[in-house]
Amino acid sequence: MTLRELWERGEPTVGTWLVTPSDLSAELLGRAGFDWICVDGQHGLVGYEGMLTLLQGLAIAGVPAFVRVPSNSPEHIARALDAGAQGVVVPMVSTREAAEQAVTAAKYPPEGTRSWGPSRNVLRVPDYSAAVANRRNVVAVMIETPEGVANMDEIMSVPGVDAIYVGPNDLALGFGREQNDPEQEAVVASLLDGCRRHGVVAGIHCDDAQTVARRRESGFHMLNLATDASLLYHGALHELAVARGAEAAPPRRTASYV
Amino acid sequence: MTLRELWERGEPTVGTWLVTPSDLSAELLGRAGFDWICVDGQHGLVGYEGMLTLLQGLAIAGVPAFVRVPSNSPEHIARALDAGAQGVVVPMVSTREAAEQAVTAAKYPPEGTRSWGPSRNVLRVPDYSAAVANRRNVVAVMIETPEGVANMDEIMSVPGVDAIYVGPNDLALGFGREQNDPEQEAVVASLLDGCRRHGVVAGIHCDDAQTVARRRESGFHMLNLATDASLLYHGALHELAVARGAEAAPPRRTASYV
Amino acid sequence: MTLRELWERGEPTVGTWLVTPSDLSAELLGRAGFDWICVDGQHGLVGYEGMLTLLQGLAIAGVPAFVRVPSNSPEHIARALDAGAQGVVVPMVSTREAAEQAVTAAKYPPEGTRSWGPSRNVLRVPDYSAAVANRRNVVAVMIETPEGVANMDEIMSVPGVDAIYVGPNDLALGFGREQNDPEQEAVVASLLDGCRRHGVVAGIHCDDAQTVARRRESGFHMLNLATDASLLYHGALHELAVARGAEAAPPRRTASYV
Amino acid sequence: MTLRELWERGEPTVGTWLVTPSDLSAELLGRAGFDWICVDGQHGLVGYEGMLTLLQGLAIAGVPAFVRVPSNSPEHIARALDAGAQGVVVPMVSTREAAEQAVTAAKYPPEGTRSWGPSRNVLRVPDYSAAVANRRNVVAVMIETPEGVANMDEIMSVPGVDAIYVGPNDLALGFGREQNDPEQEAVVASLLDGCRRHGVVAGIHCDDAQTVARRRESGFHMLNLATDASLLYHGALHELAVARGAEAAPPRRTASYV
Amino acid sequence: MTLRELWERGEPTVGTWLVTPSDLSAELLGRAGFDWICVDGQHGLVGYEGMLTLLQGLAIAGVPAFVRVPSNSPEHIARALDAGAQGVVVPMVSTREAAEQAVTAAKYPPEGTRSWGPSRNVLRVPDYSAAVANRRNVVAVMIETPEGVANMDEIMSVPGVDAIYVGPNDLALGFGREQNDPEQEAVVASLLDGCRRHGVVAGIHCDDAQTVARRRESGFHMLNLATDASLLYHGALHELAVARGAEAAPPRRTASYV
Amino acid sequence: MTLRELWERGEPTVGTWLVTPSDLSAELLGRAGFDWICVDGQHGLVGYEGMLTLLQGLAIAGVPAFVRVPSNSPEHIARALDAGAQGVVVPMVSTREAAEQAVTAAKYPPEGTRSWGPSRNVLRVPDYSAAVANRRNVVAVMIETPEGVANMDEIMSVPGVDAIYVGPNDLALGFGREQNDPEQEAVVASLLDGCRRHGVVAGIHCDDAQTVARRRESGFHMLNLATDASLLYHGALHELAVARGAEAAPPRRTASYV
Ligand SMILES: [Mg+2]
Ligand SMILES: [Mg+2]
Ligand SMILES: [Mg+2]
Ligand SMILES: [Mg+2]
Ligand SMILES: [Mg+2]
Ligand SMILES: [Mg+2]
Repeated sequence: MTLRELWERGEPTVGTWLVTPSDLSAELLGRAGFDWICVDGQHGLVGYEGMLTLLQGLAIAGVPAFVRVPSNSPEHIARALDAGAQGVVVPMVSTREAAEQAVTAAKYPPEGTRSWGPSRNVLRVPDYSAAVANRRNVVAVMIETPEGVANMDEIMSVPGVDAIYVGPNDLALGFGREQNDPEQEAVVASLLDGCRRHGVVAGIHCDDAQTVARRRESGFHMLNLATDASLLYHGALHELAVARGAEAAPPRRTASYV
Repeated sequence: MTLRELWERGEPTVGTWLVTPSDLSAELLGRAGFDWICVDGQHGLVGYEGMLTLLQGLAIAGVPAFVRVPSNSPEHIARALDAGAQGVVVPMVSTREAAEQAVTAAKYPPEGTRSWGPSRNVLRVPDYSAAVANRRNVVAVMIETPEGVANMDEIMSVPGVDAIYVGPNDLALGFGREQNDPEQEAVVASLLDGCRRHGVVAGIHCDDAQTVARRRESGFHMLNLATDASLLYHGALHELAVARGAEAAPPRRTASYV
Repeated sequence: MTLRELWERGEPTVGTWLVTPSDLSAELLGRAGFDWICVDGQHGLVGYEGMLTLLQGLAIAGVPAFVRVPSNSPEHIARALDAGAQGVVVPMVSTREAAEQAVTAAKYPPEGTRSWGPSRNVLRVPDYSAAVANRRNVVAVMIETPEGVANMDEIMSVPGVDAIYVGPNDLALGFGREQNDPEQEAVVASLLDGCRRHGVVAGIHCDDAQTVARRRESGFHMLNLATDASLLYHGALHELAVARGAEAAPPRRTASYV
Repeated sequence: MTLRELWERGEPTVGTWLVTPSDLSAELLGRAGFDWICVDGQHGLVGYEGMLTLLQGLAIAGVPAFVRVPSNSPEHIARALDAGAQGVVVPMVSTREAAEQAVTAAKYPPEGTRSWGPSRNVLRVPDYSAAVANRRNVVAVMIETPEGVANMDEIMSVPGVDAIYVGPNDLALGFGREQNDPEQEAVVASLLDGCRRHGVVAGIHCDDAQTVARRRESGFHMLNLATDASLLYHGALHELAVARGAEAAPPRRTASYV
Repeated sequence: MTLRELWERGEPTVGTWLVTPSDLSAELLGRAGFDWICVDGQHGLVGYEGMLTLLQGLAIAGVPAFVRVPSNSPEHIARALDAGAQGVVVPMVSTREAAEQAVTAAKYPPEGTRSWGPSRNVLRVPDYSAAVANRRNVVAVMIETPEGVANMDEIMSVPGVDAIYVGPNDLALGFGREQNDPEQEAVVASLLDGCRRHGVVAGIHCDDAQTVARRRESGFHMLNLATDASLLYHGALHELAVARGAEAAPPRRTASYV
Repeated sequence: MTLRELWERGEPTVGTWLVTPSDLSAELLGRAGFDWICVDGQHGLVGYEGMLTLLQGLAIAGVPAFVRVPSNSPEHIARALDAGAQGVVVPMVSTREAAEQAVTAAKYPPEGTRSWGPSRNVLRVPDYSAAVANRRNVVAVMIETPEGVANMDEIMSVPGVDAIYVGPNDLALGFGREQNDPEQEAVVASLLDGCRRHGVVAGIHCDDAQTVARRRESGFHMLNLATDASLLYHGALHELAVARGAEAAPPRRTASYV
């Protein structure tokens, strides 16, 4: 199933993020049942070569891939799509202009300014063409600053914005709040409302399974569960405690990114 | 703490195995609290370059490293030690001669035939010399064939064999038994007895935390808990089930290698 | 289709060889329509890490992969299969014992001595087990020395030898002949006869398309067409001549390996 | 021969593009007789590390190298030259300012703003100095948008612009035309005329040998023939058809990038 | 000792620069006694992946690391810090705005706009938080243009600028002078005065040990000694001359970068 | 100049060893004036992929390359030559049979058993053929054990042994002596005499320039000067001491391998 087909089903989806440049762990997680997987080019330890490696690992497993680009640059967006990503997640989008720029970079003319260069796509995508690609690729922009929250309607109404992906960590930091501050929760709720109002998919970054479950129930449809690094690290902590005979195993945490 | 110091404490130790050639996941697991970590050069997806990468990742975290060599070859043993491993795990050792060959390869003259070439060690190990290295490095040999079981006393009594590492999968396969066959358990118990008799550390590969706990109680001191790949994959399966709201989460398994 | 299924169809197959460690060119050739592709670990510029890279590139395209191991060593054979190859091509097999050793290395007990370690296979192969793997993997041994020719019946009759792969270059060199010597052709014909007699697939290395066509008509079923390097280099020579306006384009050659 | 010397001969040159990050295929194509080779950093599957790898492969063969930078950024231009490229191809140059920016980035003061850091050049280039480098390096800018066509005279007259490289795919896409639209051909002809008028080398991207031959006859001097990927893929298609005994081999195409 | 602690001691420090992407040479130099080591992402032959590799090599040795970013881009600054650098060196800072932008990129809100993503830091830095990171990381900006010299007071007084790093090569090139021009020396002296006036650490790039010694005596505290490449190359020239029996060994030079 | 041509000149040659897998440092040292450079596959931190990388770096600089193979295995010898080495250094050769095995592995039939596969050579070596290669490649075997010393005449008289390379570290270790033991010097002298008697080139590993000069005067012709790692590390120690104003700089040592 392509990312676009998944988007059109209108059901909650759960993915995870890759921050470690290993095609083998990508292949492994690609077989674990996630609906999509996102290569994190912003805070993950992956540059261009790492991104390509991870997209190849995911291609073996056949799971559709997002790339979070390091910044809202046309070059990064085009190169992620050229390399085989089906969608991009664009961080720190705070204005309508920024959202438009992201969409423009992701689309070939006449809808945008992406430059032709089929790269990994021409043999992989049936009847690949500019029109096919423009339709197929998914653009998610992150709202994760106070300015972005203030401009949510302008951002959400940009044609070609397929999803809003909420970044709770930067949001809290930008507002100077803790994650569990009730006002933080109110902001998240208002963003979810905005998405419904504008008919775009609502997405949010979650560090653990409990948070995914909670966000899914509240109506988010693009749900992230942890990262490869946190699954590995917290899995090890948990199992090691059990192995060493801890009376009560420590609560399983997959908290904040690692 | 060095591997040798760990060995001399005479207490149970828990480690894990790396099968994915990523210095970042090595660094991460190196910080998770294992007593030692073993790079699997036999069945792991790591060649020489992958092994070196993993040893570097572990060096960042400062956890002592074993390498399981691909086969009982003097070249593999020497090159693992040259690259910075503090110990080797040698697979498929079934005779006294094989055990002697492993030890000989791991020691400089006059105790063995290892060739001088300090490589990564000379700056890392205080006062590195042939004598220091001979004392410092740990040799573990695997008994995992019917022939090896038959020859256990001959193998265990070879000077320089510091530990016996039992490989239950190959053992079961070699005897044509299932893992849970009572006779398989009897063989494991006889190997543990042998280790006690000969004063060598008893080690065993365990795929999950429960097995580690059980083996530790029975007297094994070199206990392996899963692999990076199984921790990642089974961790993902478990978390994903919780995220999707499974009534009862599936039992957490870190079974056989993945 | 798996390599085994392909083998059981009993029809001519055409593959190519990879000598350049690039997952991208592997992915590209994997989409070009070959029945199988062989990673050349003997004369190709690929070590363990390169082999793994190429197997991953081929896995994206879904074409079944052979690995030619660097030498008839149990370690090389097991590690190629662990890494995801469906078959091995073993060079320089000149005696019955050598052929038996190759088969033994490729099979788990009770048929052989391969050590358990599912590595890349356990998630990829449905119901992976020792029995499944033993049945699934294909063993091709190369006859390419005068001694091998003399012992062809002993080699071809070893149970588990699925194919004989003829190496014309080493054969000619070993007999001190040119490739186009009629006696060289007689040797090839006798090997083809031997394969028919023993019911094993007859394979042969061909440097260009014309030779493949000729060998196919004579009855060979495992036909190699050139290498990635020769396809690239000779393709470039040909196109460059046309681009520069050569009166008559040079004959297209994909001769000897480059 | 350096790129500059080649440029000053005033004769047609034929090169090819590398989109696969393999030093070995770069070395191979570097020996095939091309006048120059261009590493494609925009649509090729190469980041900084891949670019460096390819420049090293080309250096073995001694063929002068261009790098197409991912975008018209001073950083990309300087880093390609630092890494050993003798020229840059700058995509999507549509205004005089953009052309000036590209030249400025490629030249040390007083002609530009490139920062000193001899990197790979100081030992390779005789008497390397700012003045030597400024004279030696070649700047080609791409005209491939309607706006660029409209501004051709402004772009072509910028001092330091050594060549115009026409990008037919983006040009057609930007004008909303097919490649074989007569108006597309008229635009190409007008760009060729412009180059003559301004005394700059006229270059154009060609996907196959026939197009190179045609463009050369019309007066282009910087002619690209296909890519490593298309030479490999279409070479394989052609040879495979012949090997399988196709009555008439399919026409050999090296079309659009793959 | 962290970079910040080193900075607060107020004593001269000597570091070196890495331009070769080898974790092993990084590890080696990391043990040679430098106070800090800087990965050169601007003119070094290192992209993102190379930078990460070098930071890992340095982490093994435990020496604190700077990264010189390729340009004054928020993305580069944040990604260097995410990857484990304790400080950044920002090239070509010529205005107050540029200096502010560099600081802003290096600090989390409320002091800056860095986006949260603990990446390699969360497990390595005790009690890692936005406040801890903002305090811990060191920002050095380069003054190396005539404009930068003219604006030195505006640049040096930006809060969060911890050091000024003088680039003599670009400075000479920008003023159109030779390195040994007395006016060049006067500019360097005025920059040193400026640093004292504003209470920021004065740093300068030195190509050899004699220059370091001279600059240290004049009052610079952040002193660079050569690069890995120049240490290797000039060390080889010197030793080779001695080995070949040169009457008088050539003067040892570690001049300009190689 | 090829290694063979260098050998036939009959004059002292000075080389160095590479133990760090960086094509860039190989390229750099390749330009420093050494007569040949040896990639150390035994104690260097290089596997197959590292060896290939280093051979490519050396090919850029055009200096002829030896590879010290990890062990006296036909596979290692053939693969080093396939990858572009012009010579092999074979460690730990202690008997006539071992020397014969090394030569046999390095020669195509009828002189040996090397298997055909031109790999990197066919385009690089003019008129490459089995006969050309057999003549061109240089075989050096190491005498570095008491047994090897005892068998020196048998080893030195094997046709095809072009040089003896003395390994002083292993020699001292094997005899249980210090490096500066007069008996160690007597053994070295007797090996030099042997080489003269048998008309083979006498080579010896030297850790610093003074030792090279001394050994050259005594008659050795294949002289090694340090390694990339020791040149880098000891160069840094020396320069750093000067930079920090040491009254008298420490004696420059490039001792034992690092
Ligand atoms: Mg964020
Ligand atoms: Mg086993
Ligand atoms: Mg052969
Ligand atoms: Mg274009
Ligand atoms: Mg500068
Ligand atoms: Mg030795």
